Amino acid sequence: MNMNGPLYHDDIEVGTTFTTGHYILTQEEIIGFASRYDPQPFHTDPEAARHTLFGGLAGSGWHTAAITMKLMVERGLELAGGMIGAGCELTWPVPTRPGDTLHVEGEVIEVTPLAPGRKRGLITMRSETKNQDGVVVQTLVAKLVVPRRPE
Amino acid sequence: MNMNGPLYHDDIEVGTTFTTGHYILTQEEIIGFASRYDPQPFHTDPEAARHTLFGGLAGSGWHTAAITMKLMVERGLELAGGMIGAGCELTWPVPTRPGDTLHVEGEVIEVTPLAPGRKRGLITMRSETKNQDGVVVQTLVAKLVVPRRPE
Repeated sequence: MNMNGPLYHDDIEVGTTFTTGHYILTQEEIIGFASRYDPQPFHTDPEAARHTLFGGLAGSGWHTAAITMKLMVERGLELAGGMIGAGCELTWPVPTRPGDTLHVEGEVIEVTPLAPGRKRGLITMRSETKNQDGVVVQTLVAKLVVPRRPE
Repeated sequence: MNMNGPLYHDDIEVGTTFTTGHYILTQEEIIGFASRYDPQPFHTDPEAARHTLFGGLAGSGWHTAAITMKLMVERGLELAGGMIGAGCELTWPVPTRPGDTLHVEGEVIEVTPLAPGRKRGLITMRSETKNQDGVVVQTLVAKLVVPRRPE
């Protein structure tokens, strides 16, 4: 990986990897996020959550996705123009829990050739968000828009 | 659509549709969400955003996803056991902007047959999140976990 500043599309190679820093997910934050954006008992009420599929308070998958983004913006692929997604596929194999410490490991899995005359192109990144036990709580395959290196 | 309480897997038919209420997205909320989870200039700084691909402040795609979830939890498919996603595909064809009024239109596109003896099964839902001009700002295809009707 090029450590000499942001990467342009021309610089990126399949197999480039990254590992982010860590994020501690508190019960307070799980409830706060879910109260605003995913207000369901298994995300907002520890007692009611015990009697649901989750068997206890679990973070919203959208919260996991948002934390994953924060970790990648802070220390992921340092892309020229920023980290801009055109679309993605997500899975949430197991839920996050209060007190989890999350980090993200990622890899470039495809670099779509630049079309002639276009100022930007796509790359495909795959990432796994893991908890403190190494268990994958989210997989993400995202198409990112990356500028061509200026002439 | 069954209006007599939450839907079990057995009750759900392909072609069932829903339309949510509306959500007004303020510049303050765009900046607040992004400052916490997607801290990039085009999401946090209206002036700096003018000089980026977006040409002005734009909401994070993860913020659009979170708002879409809120709208669907409040008035979407009323599923027994809640709205629980196993995974999804997302696209963000155009960004959200400060002052946008968003709503979601959705449809059940697949009901995976229940496996014998299993207490729950999957359905696939497709939704579009639209702004006040009817422009699609997000598409979502999600696999949801829905309980079988108790004996």
